[in-house]
Amino acid sequence: MSNSTDPRATRSRAAILVAARSLLLDEGPAAVTHQRVAQQAGVGRATVYRHWPQAEELLHDVMTGVDIPFFHEPETPVRPWLHSQLRKLADELATPQVAGATLTLMQGALWDPYIATQRDECLEALNERLEVALALAVTNREIDISADPIDLSALLVGPIVYRTAMQAGTVSHQLIEQLIDSLGRWHDGSSREDQPDRP
Amino acid sequence: MSNSTDPRATRSRAAILVAARSLLLDEGPAAVTHQRVAQQAGVGRATVYRHWPQAEELLHDVMTGVDIPFFHEPETPVRPWLHSQLRKLADELATPQVAGATLTLMQGALWDPYIATQRDECLEALNERLEVALALAVTNREIDISADPIDLSALLVGPIVYRTAMQAGTVSHQLIEQLIDSLGRWHDGSSREDQPDRP
Repeated sequence: MSNSTDPRATRSRAAILVAARSLLLDEGPAAVTHQRVAQQAGVGRATVYRHWPQAEELLHDVMTGVDIPFFHEPETPVRPWLHSQLRKLADELATPQVAGATLTLMQGALWDPYIATQRDECLEALNERLEVALALAVTNREIDISADPIDLSALLVGPIVYRTAMQAGTVSHQLIEQLIDSLGRWHDGSSREDQPDRP
Repeated sequence: MSNSTDPRATRSRAAILVAARSLLLDEGPAAVTHQRVAQQAGVGRATVYRHWPQAEELLHDVMTGVDIPFFHEPETPVRPWLHSQLRKLADELATPQVAGATLTLMQGALWDPYIATQRDECLEALNERLEVALALAVTNREIDISADPIDLSALLVGPIVYRTAMQAGTVSHQLIEQLIDSLGRWHDGSSREDQPDRP
């Protein structure tokens, strides 16, 4: 891709990224072609080719920098914090944009090593943050964990991805509580009976 | 699509479906174009257009008839049967072909109403079969269920899809036991302590 510092090139590069991202979210990765991106960005097709000779690299650059804003900086007590993070995740994944970006990343990773690297970094970050949070819960004597640390995100995030991005359904308060319960034995102040019984 | 009974048309139609399925599994849905399919099937591009004027319809027909071979005809005791079904599911989803087909179906469904119908039928069948199996476990006095019936597949299948198709990891015996435990309170003969402690 071009390293030009020409402001016009910078502008067209930015316009191309915005157009490619919009096509990706609206129509899926198959729509991110040089022709469609050029059309949507209002630039010539040759300009898109100059910046990104391969459509795959463009797709990769569109996906890079999608940060996962979850499970950062845990708070004690950990249980309500975890519930609120999982609720936010479920609400974001219920939007077509985030569901689309997530499944596109996961599916693209099966065929594209660039995207696989991107996916692995995302998922490892997620699992590491959950490990940190649960370690804090152990230190804080909130829980005796019975789950394997490597399974934390599969247990907590897997059902939420399935329910939202795959089943196009909503995640109930009860489901989140059940996911949290499945990690091990929670003590007194943090058991599910003490949580408000919202739907 | 063509309804011709000309044996040559029937042969080319079958060859096109095989070629499209192979491209889908190897390279993803973006590879299922008239040109690539014609090349792979060894037929002219016009022949592909005659059978499937739209590539989306071809993609849909490739996906149709993918049956999910899981959770059929439950047996008592339900718990070991459920464990064996989840193990088979995890092993199948660990293959690139099944992981690819699953994520392609899920992702394609976000943009294509045909594929969305296909996905919904698959996922509803899965959830209904799990409801039937768990109802049998209740009748058989194996479990007091605390999970919402609508969440059964999210709780059991979600973590397995996440761990295999997304994290490219393996599903341990312990994880399957934990998923089964998360559904409610299992009684005596079917508690996890009575299961062999395989890795």
